[in-house]
This record gives sequence, structure tokens and C-alpha cells, in this order.
Amino acid sequence: MKIRVGIVGVTGYTGGELLRLLLNHPQAEVKKATSRSNAGNDVTLVHPNLKGEISLIEDEFEIDSFVKDIDLVFLALPHGKSAPLAREIYDRDVKIIDLGADFRIKDAEAYKLWYELEHACPELLEESVYGLPEIHKDEIQKAMIVANPGCYPTSIILALAPLLANKVISRENIIADSKSGVSGAGKTLTDTSHFANINENLHAYKVGNHRHIGEIEQELSLLGQSQLLINFTPHLVPMNRGILSSVYAIPVVKLRQKELDELYHEFYKDCPFIRLRDKDSLPQTKWVQGSNYCDIAPILDERTGRIIVFSAIDNLVKGASGQAIQNMNIMFGLDETTGLKLAGMYP
Amino acid sequence: MKIRVGIVGVTGYTGGELLRLLLNHPQAEVKKATSRSNAGNDVTLVHPNLKGEISLIEDEFEIDSFVKDIDLVFLALPHGKSAPLAREIYDRDVKIIDLGADFRIKDAEAYKLWYELEHACPELLEESVYGLPEIHKDEIQKAMIVANPGCYPTSIILALAPLLANKVISRENIIADSKSGVSGAGKTLTDTSHFANINENLHAYKVGNHRHIGEIEQELSLLGQSQLLINFTPHLVPMNRGILSSVYAIPVVKLRQKELDELYHEFYKDCPFIRLRDKDSLPQTKWVQGSNYCDIAPILDERTGRIIVFSAIDNLVKGASGQAIQNMNIMFGLDETTGLKLAGMYP
Amino acid sequence: MKIRVGIVGVTGYTGGELLRLLLNHPQAEVKKATSRSNAGNDVTLVHPNLKGEISLIEDEFEIDSFVKDIDLVFLALPHGKSAPLAREIYDRDVKIIDLGADFRIKDAEAYKLWYELEHACPELLEESVYGLPEIHKDEIQKAMIVANPGCYPTSIILALAPLLANKVISRENIIADSKSGVSGAGKTLTDTSHFANINENLHAYKVGNHRHIGEIEQELSLLGQSQLLINFTPHLVPMNRGILSSVYAIPVVKLRQKELDELYHEFYKDCPFIRLRDKDSLPQTKWVQGSNYCDIAPILDERTGRIIVFSAIDNLVKGASGQAIQNMNIMFGLDETTGLKLAGMYP
Amino acid sequence: MKIRVGIVGVTGYTGGELLRLLLNHPQAEVKKATSRSNAGNDVTLVHPNLKGEISLIEDEFEIDSFVKDIDLVFLALPHGKSAPLAREIYDRDVKIIDLGADFRIKDAEAYKLWYELEHACPELLEESVYGLPEIHKDEIQKAMIVANPGCYPTSIILALAPLLANKVISRENIIADSKSGVSGAGKTLTDTSHFANINENLHAYKVGNHRHIGEIEQELSLLGQSQLLINFTPHLVPMNRGILSSVYAIPVVKLRQKELDELYHEFYKDCPFIRLRDKDSLPQTKWVQGSNYCDIAPILDERTGRIIVFSAIDNLVKGASGQAIQNMNIMFGLDETTGLKLAGMYP
Repeated sequence: MKIRVGIVGVTGYTGGELLRLLLNHPQAEVKKATSRSNAGNDVTLVHPNLKGEISLIEDEFEIDSFVKDIDLVFLALPHGKSAPLAREIYDRDVKIIDLGADFRIKDAEAYKLWYELEHACPELLEESVYGLPEIHKDEIQKAMIVANPGCYPTSIILALAPLLANKVISRENIIADSKSGVSGAGKTLTDTSHFANINENLHAYKVGNHRHIGEIEQELSLLGQSQLLINFTPHLVPMNRGILSSVYAIPVVKLRQKELDELYHEFYKDCPFIRLRDKDSLPQTKWVQGSNYCDIAPILDERTGRIIVFSAIDNLVKGASGQAIQNMNIMFGLDETTGLKLAGMYP
Repeated sequence: MKIRVGIVGVTGYTGGELLRLLLNHPQAEVKKATSRSNAGNDVTLVHPNLKGEISLIEDEFEIDSFVKDIDLVFLALPHGKSAPLAREIYDRDVKIIDLGADFRIKDAEAYKLWYELEHACPELLEESVYGLPEIHKDEIQKAMIVANPGCYPTSIILALAPLLANKVISRENIIADSKSGVSGAGKTLTDTSHFANINENLHAYKVGNHRHIGEIEQELSLLGQSQLLINFTPHLVPMNRGILSSVYAIPVVKLRQKELDELYHEFYKDCPFIRLRDKDSLPQTKWVQGSNYCDIAPILDERTGRIIVFSAIDNLVKGASGQAIQNMNIMFGLDETTGLKLAGMYP
Repeated sequence: MKIRVGIVGVTGYTGGELLRLLLNHPQAEVKKATSRSNAGNDVTLVHPNLKGEISLIEDEFEIDSFVKDIDLVFLALPHGKSAPLAREIYDRDVKIIDLGADFRIKDAEAYKLWYELEHACPELLEESVYGLPEIHKDEIQKAMIVANPGCYPTSIILALAPLLANKVISRENIIADSKSGVSGAGKTLTDTSHFANINENLHAYKVGNHRHIGEIEQELSLLGQSQLLINFTPHLVPMNRGILSSVYAIPVVKLRQKELDELYHEFYKDCPFIRLRDKDSLPQTKWVQGSNYCDIAPILDERTGRIIVFSAIDNLVKGASGQAIQNMNIMFGLDETTGLKLAGMYP
Repeated sequence: MKIRVGIVGVTGYTGGELLRLLLNHPQAEVKKATSRSNAGNDVTLVHPNLKGEISLIEDEFEIDSFVKDIDLVFLALPHGKSAPLAREIYDRDVKIIDLGADFRIKDAEAYKLWYELEHACPELLEESVYGLPEIHKDEIQKAMIVANPGCYPTSIILALAPLLANKVISRENIIADSKSGVSGAGKTLTDTSHFANINENLHAYKVGNHRHIGEIEQELSLLGQSQLLINFTPHLVPMNRGILSSVYAIPVVKLRQKELDELYHEFYKDCPFIRLRDKDSLPQTKWVQGSNYCDIAPILDERTGRIIVFSAIDNLVKGASGQAIQNMNIMFGLDETTGLKLAGMYP
């Protein structure tokens, strides 16, 4: 029997991407989808690419009726909106994957610091699992609530995990210089998202205070078994999809490029969505466009002794909806690649 | 048993797109793929998006060994290169879909006129079928050689077919003003394809003498049962994928918008890849990006009495490799949508 | 002494472009600039490119104080806003160039039809001149109010003027298929202007009912000395600046390409901003980017007998602010190229 | 009397940009321009944006005839080509600004290391001045040969100069993560410059071994009065123009944001092309597009104690031809802003 899926907040980019990917999934079926802003509309008015694939009519949302006959709810909501709803769904014994930020940070105080908001159900934080399958697969298998990671954190944590887990770099002086396409910022209309302000332009934003820093430092500290701080600088690039993170670290042991490569191959040997690259094939965002892959290349700069790791993902797939489906597969005992072996679109 | 497929010329954009789509096809398997320029290389060096999906090693090409245990050969070659090879494959009783131009024009003289080349096997022209399934489905079912249509012709013929078949427009004064993304011109390096010359730029090219005119006029004349000429103006737009054709015609009968819509719905009622749109949802190339759909909106301009039809396709999918797979499905008795119900990627 | 200029509505794209161009003008000086939305702000908050060039503080707007010691007011306002203000400025004997739409259409009824608005001062319509210098230079010299043409109309009228004035084409079946960058739609935030909806996308809009049709038909009818209708289809292209119009017409006299070229050279021989191109150098929007040029190529398609004229402008320069300055130069007896001989930026 | 200028290598992007800018320069005139690839052609065939502005016919190049009546030669040639020619021009007592790389690195051994080439006239290296006017203005005034800096080095050195000169940062652990538009790589046709490979894509290249590292480390070491190494990572961004450098450094003294700002204001107080920005107006490449400005914002990340400096330039203007003209102005005793006070084009 197929996994019966409900989506709350289907009209955003991640909601649309969930639909696109689930339509190609052999073991899951979208049974219900809701949207406050588009209640009652045909979903293809909002996602015109899906016309002919699905004609789901979105309902008024009522919790008991919504979760009836549903095995899993994807929440694709702004932070602060997921938590109270998750409490209600959890109480009805239905599994949850939250694509928003409410369950990523385990410490309610830290959540408050980064999101300037009291957490609505701190008691559920320890029930929830940070849904980065390459790191937390075992816990995800047993979880009722999975907190799907942010797009930037996915790219940065995957870039650094082998180094920190193997204690080969200093926990000081880690810098993540990340560049993202515009869909990462969602559909909201702002001066920043106006075509004429993005096209032929490039700039950094939220230097040193982007909310994703909280979950990045939480997970890197776990991996490195000691609290650390990072510099994280996001930039906005004139393209729709894709994140490239260029991550700088200082080795504390003598390493050659070959050993560095082996360390990554070993760490990711059972991870079907990690593709390791090298200096002759540095990760390009277009290579992962539309796919659930994360391409990673760890580079040793012999002249300066520094390690630079590049990682590329599609922010809407491995950085959001694809990873959510990977988590669903794991939670329901399927092969984690089920329905996700779509090659990226190129060019 | 799966259809066993061979691809000749796998390193171009259409070759890569064939691989991408066939990897998701449940009833076909790519058994062999060759490339003169990359003989012996891993195909993912050329199509890095496919890394992890396929590791096909390309062989030296030898015809008998190549067609052994193959049910169908896709030819993705420049014009002039397909015809002689098709002759040899045909003689070995293997089906052929030619994504190039060599079998599209039925009249060897017209071929010579447009391609400035003597046709290598004119005797096969009448064996071959113009592979636009919405028009020639019955013949495609029985064909040994299918000539996969050009990208511009696909968008233009589909826009006009209902009007010409129903004799509601004049065969004079038909104008097709088409706009294409850059992948339509292939991977060849020219001044025209340099990023800095395309980006933030727009221009027409080959006004009145583009080679696709030959097949467009052939098919439109067939549909209209009388020889006609069209004005076709291609333009190059700063995007990777997508063709939008804006087609202008003069009605010869009194029509209302409602009747116009009905005429299109009736004509395309059995065509799963045609999505009809209207003035409130004029076709956008992004809505079909990565998918095999052709979105069409026929608009009556009541003020001037003219009909304007907009059609949008992804030039590499419905305009090339997706349509080729649709043809394969029909030739082998499968549902024509098999493996092609991928929703487009948006945004 | 320099022309003393005031700008009302300086914060839009055309306002910013006026500032950019006037800063390089040797005979004019911006004395005052106002904006309702940014009263009191430094103009470089809105136009950060101008930092270091100008630090004009915008004032509260009061008409008498504003026009004091001002020779010319540029109005860069939405339609409906210019007319009442123009009445007041006119009464104070100050010259006006309106970059908005309020004085372009001479017939108050037609204005009402296209803009769904009663004109605020129809009595001034006959005082105002349609400011396309290549056509109306003599009247512009004497005008108190110049209605600066729309961007699409500029490109289309200049493409057709030599043909209509010389009566070599039919007044029927004229089609203008125009493609525009996004800045033409202004800074307003809409779904349509969101980066992710424009980038890698292409579509038509307002087919057959765009407001610019009114002024296009008015001017073409004047040139052809007989009322005519056109088909005008605007399209939105993923770039910031530039309009390319592809204009189709049917000759009524026998013409060769050479005669066609001569006709254009003769018609535009005294027009410094018209650059004639040919089939080997079809106009490209990037060639005019940032400059006041209009590049035009009239092409005879001998196979079909049709004339196709391509014209390219920068919608913010020749399509708006550059043309406004050209009009200013003419109104004040300067050489019309003064301050405008900036070559376009390429690439 | 105007400065009489000759340009060798006028057909590249920097050659075209020199022409564009010099056409607007009141005190300089381009007398001669040559190109090996386009000898005898009208320069507007290569730079179609300049049609109507200049119709310079390029000559066969003969050194004595070329430098006759010329005050200054701009060399816009690939590395290795400038040096031998500069020797000949120098011997004829004509001033030189080399936009190529041959005179940037003062140490012939280091030149050989980075460019894998024996320097053709090492004896001229000490005659030449590194033409970054904000640092070396006095020497530029007296120079016969000015080595115009590379685009990346300009952005990085200007970002760091105040910090190193004031000894407030460690000379270790300096990281420059730079992002560039495509015109920086010139007109050469490569897979990398094909539109479809750049558009909707992003990647790093030449990690740790880009040739610009040589001149960056030379100048930073001079400023810091001690040899240092940096990590420099260039990235290619889907846009035509612009470089944004994000530069990371570790303070060695206690500093507040206010003091950091003051330090930059003091250092650059006499530099008309430096515009200082802050965290609420982080430099954007579009703000400097087409202009000679370098926008800089030094940011203190109080949480981590690190300094991050962002600098934005137009790689073809401040990163090449604009800076060359700024150098010319200084060499000939003009105000350094002469002919360069063009505001950038926005959007």
C-alpha cells in the first residue's frame, strides 16, 4: 500500500516541488493538500507546471478531517506556524516532516535567540530528529517528527561532516561563504526579489546574523563533539535554483589530497546522494539542478595549507523537498532513493 | 521485456536529454551509446548531471556489433550524417528514430534546397514518417524510420494544425514569430553562443531562410491540403531552454473565442501532451520546462479580427528527446506517455 | 546659462535614468527633484548607483516654490497623475516634458477608452506635441508641453514611419511582435516581476489590449494619412533593458532590398540617433544598451514578398529618459545630441 | 591640447571599453587603434555598440608609424605579448599603460612562476609602476610604464589596504572569496563561456592557483610590510560584468565597527572612486556597473570577532579600462576623475 501523504502549505516553492517529486514516487500518493491563501483553488493555478498531472482541490483545513487516513503530513509553513500545528498532528499519532524551521534547533532558548519567538511546544523538541539522513539516518527511522534541514545548513554540514567527525580540522576559523539562487528566499515579493534588482547583480546579505547559523553550529558542534562558532556569509546570485558553499578550514593534522579524498569516500560510502568530485570537476550547481544530489569536492591548497570544500545542491530538492522525501522513505522503511533517482536537468 | 535502445551521438544536448529521460522510463533501457568525439569516455564526463545514474562506457562504433540485440536506434547527429547510417541500420532490420533533419523533408529536391546537400538515400524517404504524434500517430505505429521533428516546427505546426485542418484560416499571411532559448543551437562554440553575447540581449536571426521552414511548410501544406508559404522569424532569447511561438493568422470564417477554443479542444482531445490555455494563462516556457508538454492558447483579437496562437515547448523535450521517446512508445505499442509524465521543473 | 531642470517623480526607473543622463549633460542642471514616496530622503538611497554623483535632497512638493527659477519640468508619474499637475505648471509658464501617458493621445475620447479615465485637462491636449523627434521635430521646437512617447510605440513607429510616409505598404495586416526587458514594467512588485518568474521564462501578455496601441495607431495613421489598426503583441523577456520589435508589413509596390534600404536612409538622413542595419547585422538590444540609439533593419523576404522591420532600443533611454532629454535639447535650441552621445555599454 | 592616444589590441572587451570611455573624455582622443585579428576592419564591426560614435579604421601595425604623434599607448594584449612591445615603445619615449599582466609582478622569477614564461624585458620591471591609484598615486604621476592591475586584485587589495597599512589584522588566515561576471574571462570561446554552461549555474575555478595570486600577495605584502600568503578562490557567476570580493581577516587589535569605519574613511578620504558602504547597504555589483567606482563595506562580526570586507567593482571599468584612464589622467596631470564621472547604469 502506498504512503498516504498530506501537505500543509502547498502553494510555496517547496510545496510545489514536493508535488512534482511525489508525482514520480511509486510508493507515495498525495491525498490532501491545503493552503490558506488559495483555499478551494485548483493547485495548478498556483503551480501551472503541474497542469495535467494533478487536479487536487485544496480544502478548508480542519485537523481531524485532514489527518484521517493520512500516514504522514509535510508541513511547508513559515517558522512559528509549524510548531502549534505539529503538536496537534502529533497528538493524533500521525508522522510529521516539517520543512520549516521550528524543530531544527533542539534548544528552545537558542530557537528564541535566532527566531525571536517563544517556541510553541518545546516539549516536542526532543522527540524531533534533525533530518539530515547522511548524519542521522538511524534516528530518522524511528522518528515521529523530522525537522527537515535548511538549505544552506544542508550544503555546509555535508561539506564539513567528514572533517569534524574525523577531528582533522581546527574548530576555529571555519568560514562558510555560500551563494544561493533566488528561489531559496521564497515567493514573497520584495525589492530584493524584483527581477531588475537580481539580474546582473550580486551581493551578500545578513552577514553574521542569518538564522541558519543556529542549526549549522548545533550540528557541527555535535559532529566535532565540542561547541564551535562559524562565519557564515550568504550571497544572492542571479539564478533560480542552486546553492554553492565554499567552506574554509584549517587542518590540525598532516594530510595529503589523496588522504583527504579517502576520508570523504569512507565517510559517505553508504550515501547514495553524495557524489564526490575533485579539482578537475569542481561542483557546479547546474549539475545537481532538479536532483537530490549533493556534489562535494574537498580540496587541499598545498601552498597555504588550507582545506577548501565546495558543495553544491539544488536548494529546493536536496535543500528542501527532495530531502524531505528521502526522510519519508527512511521513516517508512523504503530504500532512501525511491522516487528520487531523477537525474538533474542539464543544461 | 524492455525495449533495448542504442544511441548514436550521445554527447550533444539531445543525446544527454535522451539519457536523462530514458533513465526514468520503466520499459526501455539504454544498452549502447556512442560518440565520435568522446569514444571510450565515461558518459558522465560529458553529462556531469548523470553521474551516479549511469556509467555507460562508449564504444568504438561498428555497425553490426552495435545493432546486435538492439530494438531501436536513436540517431542524434548533424544533418547529412544520419542518412547514410540509417540506410545501414534499416538494412539490418532495426527501427530508427532520427533526431536530426535527414528524414523530415519528403522531397529530396526540397531537402537539397534547404540543406544544400544531396540526400544520401532518397529511397528511404517514403519509408520514413514525420514523427509528430499529434498528427501522424497511425503512421508512426507502423514505421521503421521516424523523422523526429525540429523544435521550431513542433511548436508552430501544433499551434496551427486545428486551424488548417478545419479550414478556418487563410493560407496566406501566416506569420510565425518564434523565440528560442540557446540550447536549441547546440553545444557548438560560436560568438553567438558566448554568454556575454546572449545574456541581456535579444535578436532575430536567419530571417526568412532558416532550414526549418522546409518541414514547417511541408506539414502545414499537408494539413491545409494546399501548398502554402509562411513567414518564420526565429529569435534568440537569454535562457537555456524553451521555445515560444507567436503565430498570426487571418480567419476566413466568422468565429468567436468560444468556438475557437472548442475547435482546439476537439482536435487535441486524445493528445495527452497538449495542454490548452487561454488569455488569462498565456503559455509560458517555464511552465513546460523539462516536460514533454506543449501548452497552446488560441486567441481571437476581436478588435482586428486576427487569430494569434501561442505555443510553448521545451525545445529539448517536446522539441527533441521527449518527443523521440513519445514516438518510441507509439512504435512499440506502449502508452505514449510511458516514462514521460514528469512534471516540469518550476521555477 | 544652463537649462534649470526639475523632476517630479524621481524615484522610478525613468527618474533615475534622467538623473544619470543629465549628470553628463553639459548644458542642463537638475535643480529640484521630488518624490512622494521618498520625500526628504537622499536620492542615492533610491538610486544607489548615483552615490557620489549627486546628493540632492528631495523636498516636499509645493507648486509655486517648485517651479521658481526652473525652465523645464520633467514629469515621471503614472498616467492620470501628470495631467492635473501639468495644468498648474503650464499656467506658470514653465515648459513640460511628460514621460507618462497623459498627453500622448490627442483625442480625449480615445484616452478615456485606453486608460479608463476622464482626462483632467483635455484643453491642453492640442497644446501638447507627441515627442518623437524623428517625426515631429519642428513642433517640438515650439512646444510648451511635450508628451514623451511610450517605449513600445517608439520602437514600432520608427520601424514603420518610412514605409507609411512613402506609401509603400498596405495599411492592413501590420503586425508588431515586440519583446521587452523587465524594467519597462517599472519597479512595482508583482508576481510577474519576481525574479523566479521571469528568469528562464518567456511569455506574451496583454495581447491586443495593451494601452500603447492607442498612441501607436494614432501616429501610424497620421504617417499613413489614413486610419489604420495594428496587431501589437508584447512579450516579456528575461533581461533588464531593451525592446526589440519585429514588425511585419505587406508591400503594395514592387521593391528591392536596395530600394528599401535607400528609402530608410533618405527618411532618416538627418536623424543622429537612428542607425540603419541590414540582414548581416540585425539589430540586437545589447548594441543600444544605455544609449539613445534606435537601430533599425528593414528586410525584404523575397520568397514571401513580405517586409519585416526590426528595431531595437533601450526602453529606459530612447524609450523614455534619453528621448526626453533629446526633446529638451530641441525645445531649448541645443543640438539634439547634446549630452546624449554616450556609447552603449557592451557587453 | 588633448592627449593623443593609441590602443594596441582594440578588439577585446577591455579595448572596446577603453573606446567607450575615451569617447566621453574631454581631454583625450583616440588617434590610432590596431588589432591583429581585425586589421583593416571598421572597429564597429567588432564593437557594434560604437557605431555612429567612431569609424576608426584599424591599420597594419608598424611601430614607428604607430607611435608618431602619440603621447600614450594602451596595450590590451594577452600576457607575454605586451612585454616585448613595451620595450620598443619605451625606447621611443612614449608612455605606456599595459592592461595585461606583464608588468604587474616586479620579480621576474615570480612572474615566471605564475605565468610559466620567461619575462621578455625584466630590466623594465623596475621602471614600471603598479597602477592602483589609491595606493601608488605618486609613483604613477612620474611613471613611463604603468602596469594596470588585474580585476580581482583591484577588488581585493582595495578591500584590505586600510587594514594592512594600519596593522590591525593578522597577516595569516586572510581569505578572499571572489565572484566574477563572465566578461572577466574575455571573448575566447570555450565550453566554460558557452551561455548554456554559465546561465543558471555557479562554480569555483582555479582554486589556489589563479595567476592573480602573484600580484595580490605582492601588493598586500608591501602594504603589510611583511611577506604574506592568501587564499584566493574565484567563482564564475551568471552575469556579464561585476566582481564582488568577500574578504575575511582576523583582527589583532580590539576594534569596534565605528573605529573600523573611521579607519576606512581616513584611508580613502582623498580617493574619489572609493565609496564606503555599511551593513545596511552592502556593496552590490550592479551599483557600480559601467562606472569606475569601487564600493567597499568593512563589517565587524561581533559574535565571532572576525572582519569581513566586501568590495564591488565593474571588472571592465575599475577592474580594467576605467582604471587605465584614471592612471592616464594622473600621468598627464589631469584631475583623476576627468572623463570618468559617469554614473553607473541601473538597473
